[in-house]
Amino acid sequence: MCELLGMECNVPTDIVFSFTGLRKRGGGTAHHADGWGLALYEGNAARVFREPEAAHRSPLARFVQSHPIKTLLAVGHVRKRTRGPITLANTHPFVRELWGHDWVFAHNGTVHAASRLPLSGRFTPIGSTDSERAFCHLLGALSEEFEGYPRSTSELWTAVADVARRIGARGSFNFLLGDGRHLYARCATKLCHLVRKAPFGLARLADEDVTIDFSTVTTPRDRVAVVSTVPLTHDEAWIHGEPGHLWVFDQGSLRATLPA
Amino acid sequence: MCELLGMECNVPTDIVFSFTGLRKRGGGTAHHADGWGLALYEGNAARVFREPEAAHRSPLARFVQSHPIKTLLAVGHVRKRTRGPITLANTHPFVRELWGHDWVFAHNGTVHAASRLPLSGRFTPIGSTDSERAFCHLLGALSEEFEGYPRSTSELWTAVADVARRIGARGSFNFLLGDGRHLYARCATKLCHLVRKAPFGLARLADEDVTIDFSTVTTPRDRVAVVSTVPLTHDEAWIHGEPGHLWVFDQGSLRATLPA
Repeated sequence: MCELLGMECNVPTDIVFSFTGLRKRGGGTAHHADGWGLALYEGNAARVFREPEAAHRSPLARFVQSHPIKTLLAVGHVRKRTRGPITLANTHPFVRELWGHDWVFAHNGTVHAASRLPLSGRFTPIGSTDSERAFCHLLGALSEEFEGYPRSTSELWTAVADVARRIGARGSFNFLLGDGRHLYARCATKLCHLVRKAPFGLARLADEDVTIDFSTVTTPRDRVAVVSTVPLTHDEAWIHGEPGHLWVFDQGSLRATLPA
Repeated sequence: MCELLGMECNVPTDIVFSFTGLRKRGGGTAHHADGWGLALYEGNAARVFREPEAAHRSPLARFVQSHPIKTLLAVGHVRKRTRGPITLANTHPFVRELWGHDWVFAHNGTVHAASRLPLSGRFTPIGSTDSERAFCHLLGALSEEFEGYPRSTSELWTAVADVARRIGARGSFNFLLGDGRHLYARCATKLCHLVRKAPFGLARLADEDVTIDFSTVTTPRDRVAVVSTVPLTHDEAWIHGEPGHLWVFDQGSLRATLPA
């Protein structure tokens, strides 16, 4: 199993505090030592750091933690291998371009018989994970349903939920998906989120002795949604996801909860 | 104008020495301060570092230089903006997946009326450069010509050359293209290469007072092809490209020179 971390905001925010917790869980406090990745959007383009190594020991992960990059949308992952060897090609998040947007995807769980998920021919796995196959299937299905990025974003959200439900019937399909504008988060077994907003207070990382007072680094209109496999902090009210549901975040708010 | 750096080898090699020279030219000894990028393959997957900032001053570029990653195939670029604002989306190298391979592309020059290059619908630019549009057009053309990665690689090389020639008729189209197996390098105006092989000797960087004795870091069977906009070293015999020709490198050797 793996762990997921997502962030979606209404003002550019750095993910250092949450990433510090995730990184610890990548071979430190938890055994997710087979790779890590972090995608940070700038507009519709994603900057992606990925390594088939333990985040906890990685000099690059330490660099990313110590050189914060502000972003409106981020997807992170630490990997505990279940399917596929430990290679760069099998390291989440995966990235593909669709409709002039980078799409990034990270998965926690196992999709059984993933090789039977049909591919449209447009998106082909580079590695050998069930996760990347499911992602390619998902994007292939979206590209067949819409000519370009839909004007009606709610139609897109529903389409993502529909495909997610079909894939989810084959196993455990917790995922985070970013399209440059939204963060999609599906709960199959375990996922939680919170929205940090005014009045901001203190939070203490669950995995490390680090406390932050968000009121000192925010303005009253800031909204930051954070999604994680397990609560990353004490002192905050994490909302646990309901299995078979998809959250859609936009502008730091939970915009939709769809059966998926 | 921009500067290109490519490397293709028969044994995993780090690109630190050449990247040190390129990085200097990114805002140091030359004025290519509008972005930099470096793609390093592991198998058919590429690890890509990109920033819309001067390589010379970038902490990430310094990190990459001081934490060498060995690879068989690398494509680097420093950008002096001609078209498109300074954003991540407009920073080379560009990446797309085709046939289960990451393809990476970096361009030096200007393609006129690039917006008239037809797109297949499969690959769409994220940013606003002529370069990314030309790359999307190129991959779209290849995806229409072949069902998957061709068994006959020489047919693929010829197809790349044919599309490159068509695009090149619209302006100045020096580029480097990687597909996980080969490095393609087209000369429109300025490009040079060398193959380092036994007996290895000394080389001194043109842009910095750094000398390396390759005989101390190689074995007799190593072959490393390096392609660059301008010679990166003194003391080595760089071969200058002929405008309108495409080089194809494989296993550290120049395998083909095609009209393009």
